[in-house]
Amino acid sequence: MAARTVKLAVIAGDGIGPEVVAEGLNVLSAVAPAHGLHIDTTEYELGAKRWHATGETLPDSVEAELRGHDAILLGAIGDPTVPSGVLERGLLLRLRFAFSHYINLRPVRLYPGVTTPLAAVAPEDIDMLVVREGTEGPYAGMGGVLRKGTPGEIATQDSVNTRFGVERVVRFAFAKAAERPRRKLTLVHKDNVLTFAGELWQRVVREVGAEYPGVEVDYLHVDAATMFFVSQPRRFDVVVTDNLFGDIITDLGAAVAGGIGLAASGNINPERDFPSMFEPVHGSAPDIAGQGTADPTATILSVALLLDHLGLPEAAAQVERAVAADLEERAKSPRERSTARIGAEIAERVTGQG
Amino acid sequence: MAARTVKLAVIAGDGIGPEVVAEGLNVLSAVAPAHGLHIDTTEYELGAKRWHATGETLPDSVEAELRGHDAILLGAIGDPTVPSGVLERGLLLRLRFAFSHYINLRPVRLYPGVTTPLAAVAPEDIDMLVVREGTEGPYAGMGGVLRKGTPGEIATQDSVNTRFGVERVVRFAFAKAAERPRRKLTLVHKDNVLTFAGELWQRVVREVGAEYPGVEVDYLHVDAATMFFVSQPRRFDVVVTDNLFGDIITDLGAAVAGGIGLAASGNINPERDFPSMFEPVHGSAPDIAGQGTADPTATILSVALLLDHLGLPEAAAQVERAVAADLEERAKSPRERSTARIGAEIAERVTGQG
Ligand SMILES: CC(C)[C@H](C(=O)O)[C@@H](O)C(=O)O
Ligand SMILES: CC(C)[C@H](C(=O)O)[C@@H](O)C(=O)O
Repeated sequence: MAARTVKLAVIAGDGIGPEVVAEGLNVLSAVAPAHGLHIDTTEYELGAKRWHATGETLPDSVEAELRGHDAILLGAIGDPTVPSGVLERGLLLRLRFAFSHYINLRPVRLYPGVTTPLAAVAPEDIDMLVVREGTEGPYAGMGGVLRKGTPGEIATQDSVNTRFGVERVVRFAFAKAAERPRRKLTLVHKDNVLTFAGELWQRVVREVGAEYPGVEVDYLHVDAATMFFVSQPRRFDVVVTDNLFGDIITDLGAAVAGGIGLAASGNINPERDFPSMFEPVHGSAPDIAGQGTADPTATILSVALLLDHLGLPEAAAQVERAVAADLEERAKSPRERSTARIGAEIAERVTGQG
Repeated sequence: MAARTVKLAVIAGDGIGPEVVAEGLNVLSAVAPAHGLHIDTTEYELGAKRWHATGETLPDSVEAELRGHDAILLGAIGDPTVPSGVLERGLLLRLRFAFSHYINLRPVRLYPGVTTPLAAVAPEDIDMLVVREGTEGPYAGMGGVLRKGTPGEIATQDSVNTRFGVERVVRFAFAKAAERPRRKLTLVHKDNVLTFAGELWQRVVREVGAEYPGVEVDYLHVDAATMFFVSQPRRFDVVVTDNLFGDIITDLGAAVAGGIGLAASGNINPERDFPSMFEPVHGSAPDIAGQGTADPTATILSVALLLDHLGLPEAAAQVERAVAADLEERAKSPRERSTARIGAEIAERVTGQG
């Protein structure tokens, strides 16, 4: 097989980021050779440490370098010693916006053997794909403050929704729904209150949906959707939603599917005009950082999404199968394992499948 | 005891609204005499039927009449035959805004005997009071559409947060927290992304919190909060949050506390400058309307909140005890009961306690 070199930028970040990223890379190295993949990694020191040392979150020169890569693997960003929002807006969201990651892809799946906080669900009840918009909504950062610190102070946040931005994510979601056995797409919004944006989302779903007569379309208000996530998760197949609602329901989805330690995500630019970025849904968890106790599974599953994006669905499936086997094994014989141990065992399973 | 007359406006509304409101009034009549209360009700025909007949959602003259009442009991508003948002914005939200219902009070409590979708929780694990802001945020209705129907279309929704509006709800929440045994207040927001509004909310909580040194203060991003609602609901005592986040987490709260059939709410103007409005959290459920199968418990618990607001905490407690006993009884000997039967049995229990 002709070797193909993938230039991967690695931003390990803060807290448990470096620990889980190490295991993601471990598994990636294990799966690569059999698929003719050579991974050429460059590490970027970004996050709390750099900000404290230099005041920088993402220098323009680094952004330009990242742009030259095929993909980015990110651990976690954020630290209690940095004011809330500085790194999130200055680094994580800046990358999502600069690289036009308009698809924030978040599978929510209950693997066999995994404990869920829900009483009466089985793995087949929780298998959805949340397609979260990644470059608009209240995340656009628009708004401001007037008369700060006075009794007359006003702070605003503006949600921006464009036909262009909504249509491209809705198209992606329909295409995904059409590929899945259930062929169902649920729009989650709050169109009875956010009437301007809601009407646009509904209209675009209606119009694009006309091109997909085989896909069943459902709509839920975001408040009702959170109820159904816990009372009837089976209701969902593909979910398409805006940036903020997607943020909320995918954390909830992670919780019902066995916890944030297992939830993967891809920040994707489908046209490949820019590098896509793969990261666990969880944060930097400073309370357990450096102890080698973090679960690297979410990062490893994010590596599977990366492989899929690189056009290697079989390699992705190999990683997912290894994770699934590891999770079943955990259920059968529970034991304490370090971050490195979990990574090593999953990597071994991947090689074993070879 | 000198009789006190309470002028109560009743808006039964759409779908199951009239059925559940009838039982709320039933229970109110049962509890009133022992507390020297005379309830003088006036019914207002508002909602889908009126809109279809006249195009009116809330005529100014009706708003003026409602203003003359001591309180409002509302069933549910909304109907699939009316475009989404018309009745919500034109009636429900209009009342909340016109009557300055800046406190949207939503207890989330797991009653003994009630089935929850969560596997490992007991009633003592779920006992919180969500204090949702009711007159600002993205509910203000600000925003608009530009170039509608063209590829260049933009729709915006603006969240408005004023020092005045945030401070009054935060003060109310601290006062509630100080009265409760655990004395804990959790601010739920998304200050790492909604930085303008988030900073204001955080600052106000810090400043008002300085007056309440006995109240422990916690902060959670809304996405993390939804996770903890299912994985660790014990974490919460009083929660204070904005209008939209409050909408979302209280539906989720209702789900984990046994379902929307039990969730009560009060839209409160604490200064009593305007009538406060009490309503179940659930909607009009057109699919089961007219069948006499809706659970009136959420409305009956909303009547308890109404009694509390009228300054009759003992009457409120009586209703709550009757509901709790009814729910325990249901758990012991499950049987099908109509809406009217449930109402009648709870009313009987209230009288029995006399
Ligand atoms: C860290 C934060 C900015 C981010 C978000 O809100 O998108 C995170 O919660 C996520 O879901 O990836
Ligand atoms: C009907 C709707 C406008 C309302 C809201 O969003 O506030 C409802 O969901 C609620 O929670 O009372």
